[in-house]
Amino acid sequence: MRIIVDAMGGDHAPKEVILGSIQAARELDAEIILTGKKEIIEAQLKKEEYPADKVHVINADEIITNEDIPTRAIKVKKDSSMVVGLKMLKRKEGDAFVSAGNTGALLTGSLLLVGRIKGVDRPALTPLLPTEKGCALLIDAGANTNCRPENLLQFGIMGSTYMKNVVGIKNPRVGLVNVGSEEGKGNDVIKAAFSLLKDAPISFIGNIEAREIPAGAVDVIVCDGFVGNVILKLMEGMGLMFYSNVKEIFTKNIFTYLAALMVKSGLKNFNKKMDYTEYGGAPLLGIDGVVIKVHGSSKAKSFYYAIKQAKKFVETGVIDEIRSYVCRTGGDCVESNG
Amino acid sequence: MRIIVDAMGGDHAPKEVILGSIQAARELDAEIILTGKKEIIEAQLKKEEYPADKVHVINADEIITNEDIPTRAIKVKKDSSMVVGLKMLKRKEGDAFVSAGNTGALLTGSLLLVGRIKGVDRPALTPLLPTEKGCALLIDAGANTNCRPENLLQFGIMGSTYMKNVVGIKNPRVGLVNVGSEEGKGNDVIKAAFSLLKDAPISFIGNIEAREIPAGAVDVIVCDGFVGNVILKLMEGMGLMFYSNVKEIFTKNIFTYLAALMVKSGLKNFNKKMDYTEYGGAPLLGIDGVVIKVHGSSKAKSFYYAIKQAKKFVETGVIDEIRSYVCRTGGDCVESNG
Repeated sequence: MRIIVDAMGGDHAPKEVILGSIQAARELDAEIILTGKKEIIEAQLKKEEYPADKVHVINADEIITNEDIPTRAIKVKKDSSMVVGLKMLKRKEGDAFVSAGNTGALLTGSLLLVGRIKGVDRPALTPLLPTEKGCALLIDAGANTNCRPENLLQFGIMGSTYMKNVVGIKNPRVGLVNVGSEEGKGNDVIKAAFSLLKDAPISFIGNIEAREIPAGAVDVIVCDGFVGNVILKLMEGMGLMFYSNVKEIFTKNIFTYLAALMVKSGLKNFNKKMDYTEYGGAPLLGIDGVVIKVHGSSKAKSFYYAIKQAKKFVETGVIDEIRSYVCRTGGDCVESNG
Repeated sequence: MRIIVDAMGGDHAPKEVILGSIQAARELDAEIILTGKKEIIEAQLKKEEYPADKVHVINADEIITNEDIPTRAIKVKKDSSMVVGLKMLKRKEGDAFVSAGNTGALLTGSLLLVGRIKGVDRPALTPLLPTEKGCALLIDAGANTNCRPENLLQFGIMGSTYMKNVVGIKNPRVGLVNVGSEEGKGNDVIKAAFSLLKDAPISFIGNIEAREIPAGAVDVIVCDGFVGNVILKLMEGMGLMFYSNVKEIFTKNIFTYLAALMVKSGLKNFNKKMDYTEYGGAPLLGIDGVVIKVHGSSKAKSFYYAIKQAKKFVETGVIDEIRSYVCRTGGDCVESNG
């Protein structure tokens, strides 16, 4: 098992990426291939103890930044850590690719350089969200701002397959985000998607209202990328607001500090519940290769978990299972069946 | 000033509706007209002290429930508290209508029985959301699940006019919900709406990501009703989750109870910040009459504030101002100008 890691992607690259990769090389049965500026990576590696036989470096002189325009960056920066890594994945010189770089570029690059699973119309960006009951997969979180009902059907199938195999949930409950829970609610696209999902070989529980998401009413949250992006970012914003308010409450005076000590374990548990680092990054479901997007602000621990997640993603054969599901549910699979 | 109140709408009708109405009659310079089953309303009134010259009852024998199908209910239940109230508003037998009943029926009824402001294509349901800096108007929260760019333009104009006049914000900052803050992001409808809003006579600050909403980055949040519904309900769901977790943290043992006492004022302040009862209900902007939707679970206090809000809505002439704005920005106003 060889996991390719974009050493130059993310706010804390390359240091935190490399630290997480070293931990993965040490603890997991996998080799790590770091792509990026060789001398910078090696200088960082020299500062650490690491299993040299399990950590490799492939040089790439350019870096795609968050300011780069995705399509252009992928075409022009051919010697970037991201493009080099994705091309290696395509040539099967690695089993998975993990990157905290420019999200748009990673999506475009995966689509152009690695390609879609045959039959999948639109790959999706699918982060895991914390809920009262654990976590739920949000599909799509922003790759597709316009969706047809067939796309939403495939999102349900891909999300369900991922949650079953990689997160280990037996019969993932799939819900369609809508403005009401009754059948017949929503716009035309949503109504048509409801019909398709109802007949799909998954545990579709019907429409869900966004109110039910934090409580963990479903394991897979199906919506178009516009709505998904709003959900993802609103949860982030609400979390930040609550965090800053709780902090303010407890840092007022000596008594409030004392109170903080008294509820320390409770606050810690709650924090842990809301922290989804351990679930890794956001897989790009529908790409014909394992690609994981790590949050740009991630530290070493997140990269470690993302690599662990990538490994399980590969081992459980999610991509082949998606391919076969999608073909059975109307995907255009002529080429792959031929 | 006469405010018509649907005495039979909401989970706690008629008691809480009547209590809130009595408070309004007492404290505000306005008369209240309660619509609903006369004997039930009068039996409740008899239990209270109230200014009899300022509280009137108009009989309506039917009730539209939350289970009723909106369009059908409005057509069939002609003697319901809601239909009777809306017809009175249309005939100018009252200056505003306040109801906590079936949201869909109130929207449909307002549209069919009261009508749109000339030039307004789509009226919207526009609740006020709590933010770090006070509150922000969400337009639309669910009346229109499909929107054209022109609808979003009108939402910006109507929301801005309301916030300026009724909430008293000098230059309301208007933001368009999008998947990124840069111009050029989003789907075709959003891109076109951006161009229209940029040229409108309002303080349009551009695209906003949902992350910025809780922090209070804008005063008017423009989006289609599908996205707005997701925002409204996700905020509710996140709020409930945080509330139940905080409760759990503080109710574990004697020490955590003690801690709760120590941070009591901080928790209270935070609770107050999150409570938007005082802002009243959600106006139906674009209807050619003042209609306020109160949350179904509301108690007396909310009805009181909604009546107060309706009064200000009438006094500040928001509807006339919207009419004139909309005509100047491309609305089809031939009839009203003729």
